[in-house]
Amino acid sequence: MHMIDIESLDAATFAPFGDVIEAAGAPDMQINDGFCERFHDRARFDFGPDGRAGLSIFRAQPRTLPYRFALLERHPLGSQAFIPMVLAPFLVLVAPDNGGVPGTPRAFLSAPGQAINLLRGTWHGVLTPLAAPGLFAVIDRIGTGPNLEEYVLPTPYTVRQA
Amino acid sequence: MHMIDIESLDAATFAPFGDVIEAAGAPDMQINDGFCERFHDRARFDFGPDGRAGLSIFRAQPRTLPYRFALLERHPLGSQAFIPMVLAPFLVLVAPDNGGVPGTPRAFLSAPGQAINLLRGTWHGVLTPLAAPGLFAVIDRIGTGPNLEEYVLPTPYTVRQA
Repeated sequence: MHMIDIESLDAATFAPFGDVIEAAGAPDMQINDGFCERFHDRARFDFGPDGRAGLSIFRAQPRTLPYRFALLERHPLGSQAFIPMVLAPFLVLVAPDNGGVPGTPRAFLSAPGQAINLLRGTWHGVLTPLAAPGLFAVIDRIGTGPNLEEYVLPTPYTVRQA
Repeated sequence: MHMIDIESLDAATFAPFGDVIEAAGAPDMQINDGFCERFHDRARFDFGPDGRAGLSIFRAQPRTLPYRFALLERHPLGSQAFIPMVLAPFLVLVAPDNGGVPGTPRAFLSAPGQAINLLRGTWHGVLTPLAAPGLFAVIDRIGTGPNLEEYVLPTPYTVRQA
């Protein structure tokens, strides 16, 4: 059994895996007569040459810490964004690619109000909210072709609070 | 001064203006070993021939009822989706097109957990959350070209609780 300590989620650390999308720092624009701030175009969307963006809702059962997992997956044909519809943290499990299989996984805990966009082909765990309702808007690739690879790690990992 | 009574937001009533995206009814798929429900591809995205989808964050100041407005706007080149990142209702102001100008506006109050996608060219009011933080993920068209038309109604409307 391998243990993983949780890291906090920030844009710079997460950049190799994807984008952290949040209302942080200075907005790019003030709109609506100054009543609204726009943080503009913050995700590296990629739906490939034959896909298009689609908006779906995921409702996932909450998990608890320590959290044990062995399954990772990736979507070779498109990026996948997860927008929490509840102001609550969720767990983000990702792994670098190591010659076609996942390397050592990492676990991030989002702050309330942070969304993520996984780059095309990024190994990740299943959706893991830590509280109900586990409600997310998901923007991912709609299209044909094999867009799911799964990999079961030979030894499970357990995520624990650092 | 014209008054508008608030209507509740449901997919059928709202269809001429856009989509209501929510975890309602039966999910289209069970994923992640049954731990997650997917309500699949629920928005009529349209970013035109020269645009692409982008993900931005809007942080809007909350408004109060009764709410008075005279400004409507529309985006002729693309759809615009608003996903609340807080489990709270928000006000949705829209109007039919009447020969290039807005017809009589309507006001909808979302239920917590409902997102919307405005069809390309739909007249709408500015973003109007009713509680702080007014935090939304927005998926709209990124691209060049004139994608904003504004129209000031000759007489303001006031939205009131029905």
